[in-house]
Amino acid sequence: MEYRIEKDTMGEVQVPAEKFWGAQTQRSIENFQIAQDINKMPKEIVKAFAYLKKAAALTNLDAGVLPKEKSDLIGKVCDEILEGKLDEQFPLVVWQTGSGTQSNMNVNEVVAYRAHVLNGGQLTDKDKVLNPNDDVNKSQSSNDTFPTAMHIAAYKMLIETTIPGITKLRDTLAAKAEAFKHVVKIGRTHFMDATPLTLGQEFSGYVSQLNHGLKAINNTLAHLSELALGGTAVGTGINTPKGYSENVAKHIANLTGLPFVTAENKFEALAAHDAIVEAHGALKTVAVSLMKIGNDIRMLSSGPRSGIGEIHIPDNEPGSSIMPGKVNPTQCEAMTMVAAQVLGNDVAINIGGSNGHFELNVFKPMMIYNFLHSARLIGDVCVSFNDKCASGIEPIEKNINNHLNNSLMLVTSLNTKIGYYKAAEIAQTAHKQGKTLKETAVELGYVTAEQFDEWVNPLDMVGEIK
Amino acid sequence: MEYRIEKDTMGEVQVPAEKFWGAQTQRSIENFQIAQDINKMPKEIVKAFAYLKKAAALTNLDAGVLPKEKSDLIGKVCDEILEGKLDEQFPLVVWQTGSGTQSNMNVNEVVAYRAHVLNGGQLTDKDKVLNPNDDVNKSQSSNDTFPTAMHIAAYKMLIETTIPGITKLRDTLAAKAEAFKHVVKIGRTHFMDATPLTLGQEFSGYVSQLNHGLKAINNTLAHLSELALGGTAVGTGINTPKGYSENVAKHIANLTGLPFVTAENKFEALAAHDAIVEAHGALKTVAVSLMKIGNDIRMLSSGPRSGIGEIHIPDNEPGSSIMPGKVNPTQCEAMTMVAAQVLGNDVAINIGGSNGHFELNVFKPMMIYNFLHSARLIGDVCVSFNDKCASGIEPIEKNINNHLNNSLMLVTSLNTKIGYYKAAEIAQTAHKQGKTLKETAVELGYVTAEQFDEWVNPLDMVGEIK
Amino acid sequence: MEYRIEKDTMGEVQVPAEKFWGAQTQRSIENFQIAQDINKMPKEIVKAFAYLKKAAALTNLDAGVLPKEKSDLIGKVCDEILEGKLDEQFPLVVWQTGSGTQSNMNVNEVVAYRAHVLNGGQLTDKDKVLNPNDDVNKSQSSNDTFPTAMHIAAYKMLIETTIPGITKLRDTLAAKAEAFKHVVKIGRTHFMDATPLTLGQEFSGYVSQLNHGLKAINNTLAHLSELALGGTAVGTGINTPKGYSENVAKHIANLTGLPFVTAENKFEALAAHDAIVEAHGALKTVAVSLMKIGNDIRMLSSGPRSGIGEIHIPDNEPGSSIMPGKVNPTQCEAMTMVAAQVLGNDVAINIGGSNGHFELNVFKPMMIYNFLHSARLIGDVCVSFNDKCASGIEPIEKNINNHLNNSLMLVTSLNTKIGYYKAAEIAQTAHKQGKTLKETAVELGYVTAEQFDEWVNPLDMVGEIK
Amino acid sequence: MEYRIEKDTMGEVQVPAEKFWGAQTQRSIENFQIAQDINKMPKEIVKAFAYLKKAAALTNLDAGVLPKEKSDLIGKVCDEILEGKLDEQFPLVVWQTGSGTQSNMNVNEVVAYRAHVLNGGQLTDKDKVLNPNDDVNKSQSSNDTFPTAMHIAAYKMLIETTIPGITKLRDTLAAKAEAFKHVVKIGRTHFMDATPLTLGQEFSGYVSQLNHGLKAINNTLAHLSELALGGTAVGTGINTPKGYSENVAKHIANLTGLPFVTAENKFEALAAHDAIVEAHGALKTVAVSLMKIGNDIRMLSSGPRSGIGEIHIPDNEPGSSIMPGKVNPTQCEAMTMVAAQVLGNDVAINIGGSNGHFELNVFKPMMIYNFLHSARLIGDVCVSFNDKCASGIEPIEKNINNHLNNSLMLVTSLNTKIGYYKAAEIAQTAHKQGKTLKETAVELGYVTAEQFDEWVNPLDMVGEIK
Repeated sequence: MEYRIEKDTMGEVQVPAEKFWGAQTQRSIENFQIAQDINKMPKEIVKAFAYLKKAAALTNLDAGVLPKEKSDLIGKVCDEILEGKLDEQFPLVVWQTGSGTQSNMNVNEVVAYRAHVLNGGQLTDKDKVLNPNDDVNKSQSSNDTFPTAMHIAAYKMLIETTIPGITKLRDTLAAKAEAFKHVVKIGRTHFMDATPLTLGQEFSGYVSQLNHGLKAINNTLAHLSELALGGTAVGTGINTPKGYSENVAKHIANLTGLPFVTAENKFEALAAHDAIVEAHGALKTVAVSLMKIGNDIRMLSSGPRSGIGEIHIPDNEPGSSIMPGKVNPTQCEAMTMVAAQVLGNDVAINIGGSNGHFELNVFKPMMIYNFLHSARLIGDVCVSFNDKCASGIEPIEKNINNHLNNSLMLVTSLNTKIGYYKAAEIAQTAHKQGKTLKETAVELGYVTAEQFDEWVNPLDMVGEIK
Repeated sequence: MEYRIEKDTMGEVQVPAEKFWGAQTQRSIENFQIAQDINKMPKEIVKAFAYLKKAAALTNLDAGVLPKEKSDLIGKVCDEILEGKLDEQFPLVVWQTGSGTQSNMNVNEVVAYRAHVLNGGQLTDKDKVLNPNDDVNKSQSSNDTFPTAMHIAAYKMLIETTIPGITKLRDTLAAKAEAFKHVVKIGRTHFMDATPLTLGQEFSGYVSQLNHGLKAINNTLAHLSELALGGTAVGTGINTPKGYSENVAKHIANLTGLPFVTAENKFEALAAHDAIVEAHGALKTVAVSLMKIGNDIRMLSSGPRSGIGEIHIPDNEPGSSIMPGKVNPTQCEAMTMVAAQVLGNDVAINIGGSNGHFELNVFKPMMIYNFLHSARLIGDVCVSFNDKCASGIEPIEKNINNHLNNSLMLVTSLNTKIGYYKAAEIAQTAHKQGKTLKETAVELGYVTAEQFDEWVNPLDMVGEIK
Repeated sequence: MEYRIEKDTMGEVQVPAEKFWGAQTQRSIENFQIAQDINKMPKEIVKAFAYLKKAAALTNLDAGVLPKEKSDLIGKVCDEILEGKLDEQFPLVVWQTGSGTQSNMNVNEVVAYRAHVLNGGQLTDKDKVLNPNDDVNKSQSSNDTFPTAMHIAAYKMLIETTIPGITKLRDTLAAKAEAFKHVVKIGRTHFMDATPLTLGQEFSGYVSQLNHGLKAINNTLAHLSELALGGTAVGTGINTPKGYSENVAKHIANLTGLPFVTAENKFEALAAHDAIVEAHGALKTVAVSLMKIGNDIRMLSSGPRSGIGEIHIPDNEPGSSIMPGKVNPTQCEAMTMVAAQVLGNDVAINIGGSNGHFELNVFKPMMIYNFLHSARLIGDVCVSFNDKCASGIEPIEKNINNHLNNSLMLVTSLNTKIGYYKAAEIAQTAHKQGKTLKETAVELGYVTAEQFDEWVNPLDMVGEIK
Repeated sequence: MEYRIEKDTMGEVQVPAEKFWGAQTQRSIENFQIAQDINKMPKEIVKAFAYLKKAAALTNLDAGVLPKEKSDLIGKVCDEILEGKLDEQFPLVVWQTGSGTQSNMNVNEVVAYRAHVLNGGQLTDKDKVLNPNDDVNKSQSSNDTFPTAMHIAAYKMLIETTIPGITKLRDTLAAKAEAFKHVVKIGRTHFMDATPLTLGQEFSGYVSQLNHGLKAINNTLAHLSELALGGTAVGTGINTPKGYSENVAKHIANLTGLPFVTAENKFEALAAHDAIVEAHGALKTVAVSLMKIGNDIRMLSSGPRSGIGEIHIPDNEPGSSIMPGKVNPTQCEAMTMVAAQVLGNDVAINIGGSNGHFELNVFKPMMIYNFLHSARLIGDVCVSFNDKCASGIEPIEKNINNHLNNSLMLVTSLNTKIGYYKAAEIAQTAHKQGKTLKETAVELGYVTAEQFDEWVNPLDMVGEIK
């Protein structure tokens, strides 16, 4: 490979000749050879940096501390980043300095040097049109840019991927709840036969879980909308022009179309990432819901002949490399694996969030890596599960009816007629003798056959159907 | 011990003669000999049951399905439970049936048999004035009462202990932030010397964290305010009179003075405890904040002679059994231990919450045990830390000034005057040569002594002090 | 309450007149009002302290630094503690100083003052026969005694409760595996029908899990057997006589009958508790196994009429307060709740273990509280599950046979005869048409009826039965 | 893109014309559009499959159920996979079926179709020289191959990356412990000044932690060495020739050079992954150690002027984009971020491991993804931290001596001369009056100046230096 020489405050570094990055990016590549093939800094963070660098340039222009030519050049390169044209220029990994300084400098360097080339210069020119620190990073510090990028990336992912994914699945489940609202089936508590409900009611519980999950996510957006930018090194805003914080937040809001505001307290915004911890707390709640739903669907569709078998789910692929004709609930499996991952990511985030010291939390890249991972996984898996499984769920009425009619727990409706103790005797006797409830009830003399038929009717046991 | 004989649907059981509980409670004692000395069902759950049993009796009375005499008797025993008069009557442990059925029956039995005695009867009477299932448990199931008790207990603990505790600490820290607002000190990022801020600004970050934490908790109260009661066995409300759900929620709201409502979807309310998962997600966020604050205070107060030593915290006790005169940040230690515990409890709750099947989650007692543990610990430790540590914090100005004046990072204010690269050269040279910034800056010829004094002033570097 | 005055290096304190503890214990009660009713320091730690204080006294006697009379007196009170006679004298909670200093001093004070009384003195005497620091704590520091007590308590709990509990359950499951070794049943993978195995084989998997779990626990005992005692304040052993570390470990080994040795490196032993983290890693592995086993048993026993229903488990109690005659897998529920708790405790321990600083980890009480909780819960729940559930498991052959004979996955044995693709066609066609495999296979012309009967025999599909 | 048509038991699928994979791989791409750009199935799993497919072919050849020509062809393609020549042929993601069936089929298809091409055929030929199921997957099921690949990949990563990485760091820290063995410095407990130790002793604690961590990992290798292969669909070994399990394990051991054996119990090996849970328990223990070490190094090197400042660590890069000349402990930050990640991964693994049902755990891909992630991260970060930080650590003797000589805790050595209480009085008085210990001790009249100099000598307080 050919190299050129770049310099930073510590001296000279060889950089691949054709790359736009500079000395500090190169140092980071060499100093952090940790899972480089699998743990690149998430591309969402790079794009979030493009928004904020452009916004900072505009704000500096507004404040009269950066000439228009420079501001325009910065904006132009940021647009290229957002269009994905410079994806190869961001080689750094998650496992770097805990403030993300090197990724901030990676962006500063690429913007400065790419701008120089756009401006007609050459990468080997000693003087360049923009200086990474003094121009691109003007009125900024890694300590306020990286957390700002975290919030931009997190918020966007929630809005663009997570919430739409959950909503899509919620809508399908709601449609199923409506479609199945008259399918009376046996209930199961403790995994044991219980009193009946409708399949629609069962699904309405999933809908309610996801609705609450969406509310929980939405509740955390306000904290996430607060941006650290303007705090610079330690939160005091050193080296920023007057009004910078509010203005840069407005520019970011404009560029992203999202309601970002400047954080009321910049000291928290650098030293702690409770907004990430809190918002991921909502994501883990959704993961818990998805685990429940995935398990239920897997169990309800189990069989085909020796399981519960009350619903049919789509057959998407051959299920077994050895058992011919087998079909498995593979979307449930992907979804429950995602749920487990999110619950693990939550712990990593909690530990990172709790270990900040003084003016800076230095678990930033790890925290946002896990957050974006979870937010993405939940969004994607909800769509996959929706499209390839939920939307094709159908009741298997034959099995549903068999299970319902055999159930001993229909006896519950006799509690209010003959009392809990006699009702229990009927159920226990029927169970022991392998008889039906009706036979047994009449034999024990507690009800007449007519009374039984009147009082024990599954349709009456599922409440009002809305 | 003397025994009397009690019966349930499975047969006879020997019960301690003088206890008010019956057969099912006794069976549970015998069947679940698991950590009986340390893991009793939380007393807050027992009291929550007292509220709901009384409310159910009143609602049954309203609906005309329970005579006034019985309703009154039930209410009377519930009042005794709330007054703590019957504490010895609830011997069961957390590790029982996962629906909490046995604790529900424990309450049903104690209410029924204590009522019988209040009514002039004897425990050995065969017929009692109230039947545990048919009267005390009327229009109820463990499956809806236990989750209702979970929400009542959780909500009350948050309102009465957790939120007041956090608020108290928040207020003290806010007062300190105000008191210390002119104490300029060195900032630290990456645990390394950075640009200055005020001690008040540092503390304002903690205040902001706790304010956001309080908001996060408050955001989860709406979900917690939803009560399962009225869903009975599987969520359909079998064996409840018309209007029961709404009315019983109103009675509970009246009795507790808290804004409880009936859950819109009872199927979720029995089968999942996402409200607990979500609310604990807010608690874990606060735990993360407390870990940060506790660590900072411990480190800021470290020394007395060979640490950071910028604040003094109260000496509450001798710190060492071997090192005479040692004083330690023990309240920080209690608080950070609590934080670790809450983060562990969170995982237990997540696992329990994710493992519900069909119409019932059967990790109920474990989930609420962990929730109440966390909510209690946070509330208590905030008060303890507040009273014994935070309220006595004072700056040690001598050390603060030494640290501030020695700092090489004051050079940062030269960035906008001479550029980042020359400023870096000054700092690095001063560090290598063990000199002051000013000497070095002048020697290198980048600024005059007068310029240095004008431009490098810590007071100018902390931003506007509000 | 009546009080007497006690003193420590910080001054005078009022102590309940009749209690044996002194000033430092009393200060701790007052300074740490955190969950005092529910989180007492585990009694196992108090007893472990009794072993080590006695051992230290004997070692000090051997070294000639403590007179025999004092050593004897210390030993006598330690024996009283071990007999449980002084249980009321240890009021402190987990949430105290993170080194456990106050519990160490609690023991020092109780030993000193109880000894004084045993020696004929009065609690109000100004001079006492033993001094808590200079005599009872001689050659010790909280920093080495508390971690020593942690290892003693943890090791003992594993040996006396955890391992015997797991072993008991393992033995019962092994007996069931043997008893059920000829019961051929359908297998289930992905919760879907699969090829057959025997019920004994299914249970043998549980046995193998627990065997591996026992090995895993045993692998961690070596690290746990290392004692910190002799390291004193920071690991250097300041203020200990020559040979103290090795000798005190021998005395502890003698007194407890367990193979304790002195830790090779005392600096680790004070500053980190990786032994606890590692050993709890084995406990969490067992928790994972128990969750699997508990879930399987609960699902296999589901029904009675509309579930899997392949095994019968004992009916221990009425299962429902509203559904008469219902029986639930309550022991499975207790066991899986315990598993969830242990997995949560693991995270608390990890966080505590990772947050030690310099010469001392100050999450000690929290770590051992969680460790002992888990070790106790696993031991207890294994015995409960064993006695009340596992030992009574019986196959329900009727359901087992129905499931087996209906299964489409018996087709797998045709793979090696007609290839995977034709076999798949048979299974899919049979499924679609609701026919038997045999009918379909013959209709499709891939095998004759005779071939089918010869080749498709469940008994041939379960491998060699040992 | 150009396509060709491939078929499986469910019908036809369009596959990219030039790819070696077939219908089932293609279906998986389409059915699981979940984080496809970031969560590919780890390449280590693909390579592990190459070992096992080759071993299975050799074993089938030995058993006479596969002709030599086919076995050779399979082996040849497997070698190509191991050489990395077919990396582009494995497009599937982690979030697929929980048994990894689709990745098994991906390998089966690629081996079969690539072999066909190697053999002179064309991808569009209808009949190919090898059939993915009947030949490449002969005597196998996804259910035993995937867990076998898990163990091969996990074991290899531990041996090749994790253990060497930890060992390298351990060796450097041991060399530092030796080099610093005479550097006496102040100890710190509770982050507060304590009695002295040597810097070498401090580092010896880290060495001891890592030594115990290496032992812990080694203890788990036996369970990991057990291979599921031979269990096929449900553990019974259906469709395998006699002696297959033992022989295939031998072939794998030969090919990998690692001591693999056939699992004693195949039912566990498919239905549970306790070996992964247990081994990751050792990894999380190491993560806990690394967090402690990383924190200590970061704090010891803090400053340069206003922190602890007792060691110097290498300056690898400019530390701040705004504060010129700042240098940060970036390797500590990468290492502690890795530790947090591993602790999160542990929880994901626990949840996956605990949720297996009946004969199959279907969290396999998620579990191994997290395991390999942790094992890789620990290995890589240990090397990075070693090379870029630990190997360059040097004491800053000036600060060390200042801290040591100022310390009030040197008073501890007076305990055995004048008793704890008088020693405490000296320390407290010196602290209050800002004097030295010696001055104060003499002023209080407890010792003479000569006694003080004789008795209070830091060198005497650090124990015997080995």
